[in-house]
Amino acid sequence: MLQLMERFPATETRREFGVRTVRVALAGCGTVGGGLLRLLEEESDAIQRTHGVRFEVVRVLVRDAGRARAVDLRGSVVTTDVASFLATDADLVVEAIGGIEPALAIARAALGGGRAFVTANKALVAAHGAELARLARESGATLGYEAAVAGGVPVIRTLRDALAPTGVTAIRGILNGTTNFVLTRMHEGARFTDALAEAQALGFAEADPTRDLDGTDAADKIAILAWQAFGVRPDRLRIDQTGLVPAPEWIVADAHALGGVARLLAECVLLPTGVAAAVEPVIVSADSILAGASAEENVVEIATRSNGTIRLSGLGAGASPTASAILGDMLHAAPATPPRHDVVGAEDTRPHRWAISVRAEGDAATTLARAAERAGVEFTPAEARRTDGVRRFVTTPVTRARADLLVRALEAAGMQPLRLRLETSS
Amino acid sequence: MLQLMERFPATETRREFGVRTVRVALAGCGTVGGGLLRLLEEESDAIQRTHGVRFEVVRVLVRDAGRARAVDLRGSVVTTDVASFLATDADLVVEAIGGIEPALAIARAALGGGRAFVTANKALVAAHGAELARLARESGATLGYEAAVAGGVPVIRTLRDALAPTGVTAIRGILNGTTNFVLTRMHEGARFTDALAEAQALGFAEADPTRDLDGTDAADKIAILAWQAFGVRPDRLRIDQTGLVPAPEWIVADAHALGGVARLLAECVLLPTGVAAAVEPVIVSADSILAGASAEENVVEIATRSNGTIRLSGLGAGASPTASAILGDMLHAAPATPPRHDVVGAEDTRPHRWAISVRAEGDAATTLARAAERAGVEFTPAEARRTDGVRRFVTTPVTRARADLLVRALEAAGMQPLRLRLETSS
Repeated sequence: MLQLMERFPATETRREFGVRTVRVALAGCGTVGGGLLRLLEEESDAIQRTHGVRFEVVRVLVRDAGRARAVDLRGSVVTTDVASFLATDADLVVEAIGGIEPALAIARAALGGGRAFVTANKALVAAHGAELARLARESGATLGYEAAVAGGVPVIRTLRDALAPTGVTAIRGILNGTTNFVLTRMHEGARFTDALAEAQALGFAEADPTRDLDGTDAADKIAILAWQAFGVRPDRLRIDQTGLVPAPEWIVADAHALGGVARLLAECVLLPTGVAAAVEPVIVSADSILAGASAEENVVEIATRSNGTIRLSGLGAGASPTASAILGDMLHAAPATPPRHDVVGAEDTRPHRWAISVRAEGDAATTLARAAERAGVEFTPAEARRTDGVRRFVTTPVTRARADLLVRALEAAGMQPLRLRLETSS
Repeated sequence: MLQLMERFPATETRREFGVRTVRVALAGCGTVGGGLLRLLEEESDAIQRTHGVRFEVVRVLVRDAGRARAVDLRGSVVTTDVASFLATDADLVVEAIGGIEPALAIARAALGGGRAFVTANKALVAAHGAELARLARESGATLGYEAAVAGGVPVIRTLRDALAPTGVTAIRGILNGTTNFVLTRMHEGARFTDALAEAQALGFAEADPTRDLDGTDAADKIAILAWQAFGVRPDRLRIDQTGLVPAPEWIVADAHALGGVARLLAECVLLPTGVAAAVEPVIVSADSILAGASAEENVVEIATRSNGTIRLSGLGAGASPTASAILGDMLHAAPATPPRHDVVGAEDTRPHRWAISVRAEGDAATTLARAAERAGVEFTPAEARRTDGVRRFVTTPVTRARADLLVRALEAAGMQPLRLRLETSS
C-alpha cells in the first residue's frame, strides 16, 4: 500500500528478520520533535507489525544538549553541531526545528544527497517548497510536508492523491490553531491577553505568537495548499493578509454586534486570471461549520467542479497530531511491505444505552418489567416517557446481546417493541 | 505525484505528443457509468494538461444497446456481450454495473490479466475484496475502489495512505445517502413513502431501494472500511445490521420523542477481541455533526490513538461525485507524468460584503459618506448600526481593492476604521 518503495535508496536500508530498519536523523527536539520520539517509541511494535519497518533514530540535532527533556535521549545520539548532523549516515531526515535556517540547509543537504526529507515547517515549504520539490525530483528523493498544514488533518495528501482529478476550484479554512483558540475564548467572554496566555499554557501558541497573530502562519499554509491544488508557486502567490492584531477586541466586538462569529479564514480561489488568496478575520454565521470549529480544531473546505464540497476537520495543533502526520510521511518515504493485519471480526461487548418503545395495548409496564428482569436490563430512574400512545423506556448501559434478549422477550409477549441505540449527549 | 507507474503494463500504453493514451473498457452505462463518460469528456483537456493522460473509452458494456442515453456512444464501442467485452484490448477496466455477476467475472478477468481494475461496486468489494486484492498483488495490477464507499469523500485513500500510521481505533459514519435523505425529510415532517419517492426522483435511491433501506448497502461499506483500517477480511466481519424497515415512522417518532434525531449509523471499532461492527438507526443529539448531515451528505468520523478524531464529509451519492472518485482511481492506476500547472497568483476581483466600523469621535457619518463616495462604495439600506459607542456599516458587495480605498480614506480622516469580511448567511 506504500508506493514509494522505488524512490528510496535501496543501499541505505537493512533487513532484520523481515523487518526493514530505516535510520532516521531528527533535527529539533522541541514540542514536535519530542512528540515524534514519543510516538515512535509508543507505536514501534505496531509499526513493525503492520508496516514491516523499524525507525531507528541515529542522530538528534538540538540547540542545547544540556536541556531537560520529556524524552530520554542517549547521549551519543545528540548533537548541537549542524555539520555533524548533516554528515550522519541516515536514510531519512526529519526536520522539526522551524524557521528558515538551518532548516533550509538541512533540507538541501538531505534531498541533494538523495535522502528522504520530511518536514513540519510551513515557513520553509512556503518560501522554498518549489526549490525543494525540484531537488527531490532530480535526486529521486521523497519530500513530505503533510505535517506543515493543519496538523493531523491529512489535507495535503487529500489534495494531492484524492482530489487532484476532481477539479479543485477553491479552498478555505481555519488553519491556525492559536488564533482560533483565542477567538473561541474571546467569544466566550475572555479578554485577549488571558485567552492568549491560556493558549500558550496549553501548548497551542508559541512563546512568540507573532506569526500566528499577524496571519503569517495561516498565509504560509494557504500558500502550500494553493501550490498543491493549483500548482502556483507558494513563494509567488499574492496573499491579502490581515491578522488579529492590533485590535482583536474590536474584531470580536464587531462580529458580535453583527450577530456573527469572527474566524481567521485562509482561502485561495481559482479565478480566470489566476489564484487569489487571502488570510483575514471574517464574520461567519454563528451556526456555520466554521463557527463550530472551536479551540485548536482546524477545518478545511475544498470546493470542486465535479465532486461538490469536501470538508476535513480534526486537530490542527499539538505535538501528537503533528507527530502523527510526520510519521505518515515517514512511512510513505520508507521502503515497506504492504501493511499486515491479523484482526478478526468480534462481538460488540461494549455497553450502550437503548431506547425501547412498545406500541401494543395491554399492561406494557408489567410485561416490560418482567422481561427486563429476565434479560438483566435496568431502566434509568425516569424510565417511562409516554407520548402519542407509545410507551418509551431508556435502559442503563447494557450490551447489545442483553438488549437483544429484552427485545425478543417483548416480541414473544406480543408487545411490538422497537429498539434504537441512544447516543444523545444528555 | 502519481506513484503507480511501475505497476502498469508498459506495453499497453501509447504516447501521443507527450500525452499518454490509456485505453478504457467500461462495464455499465447507467447513472455512474454515464456520469463517468460525461466527466471524462468535460475534464479531458484538464486531465491531459495536468496529468499528461488521455483516457480513450474503447468499449462499453451495456445491458440494452438500444436504450436512449444522456451520453452519445459511438455504436462500434457498445457491446451487450460480456465475452466480447472481456476480450477488449484495454489498459484499464472500470466496472459500474453493480451486483455480483457479471461484475466478479469482469474483475477476475481484468486483474488476472494484469489490467488495472477500478470499481464503484460495494457489494462486490465487500464479498470478494480479499480475493481481488490477492489477484491484484499476484499480477501486479492496480485495484481501485474509492468510489465504492462514501461517493466523492476520499475515505478509502485517507485510511490507506494518510491515517494508516496513526492507529485507527474506530470508524463511524453516515454512509448511505438514501436513508439519510429519507430520515432528513421525515424529520422535516414528510411521510416515509413520499420521502423515498423524492429520493428516487432525485436519483439518490435505486429503483429497488431494498439494500439501502435494510442497511445492507451501509453494511457493505463499513465492511470495506474495517478491512482498510484493521485488515479484517470484509466477508468475515460480523455486522449487527438493522435497517429503517419495517417501521421507519416509528424510528423517527421515537427519536423525536426523546429529543434527538434518527440517523442510520454504520460503525466498526477495534476491541481487544477483534473488530465489532454494526449498522443500525441511532438517536443522536439534534445539534450533533451527525444530525447536521442532511439529505445525501455522507460523514465519516475516524478515531485514532495519536491523532484525535478526523472528520470527512461531502457528497456521498450522485453520478458526479461517484464518477469523480472513479476518475481519481483511474489516474492513480494510469501511467502519468507528475501533474503540471501553469497557474499564477492573481488579485481577488470578486465582490464581497464588508463590515466597516469606526470608533473615533466626531461626525463619522459625514466623513464616511464622503469617503465612500470617493471610493465608489455603497452601503446597504439599513446602513448604520450603532451599539457600544461604535458606528458600524455594511457595504454592498464590492472588491477588496475598493474596500481598501475606503479604509485608507477613513484612516486619513482619523476615523480608526476596522474592516472585516462578512460571510454571514443573512
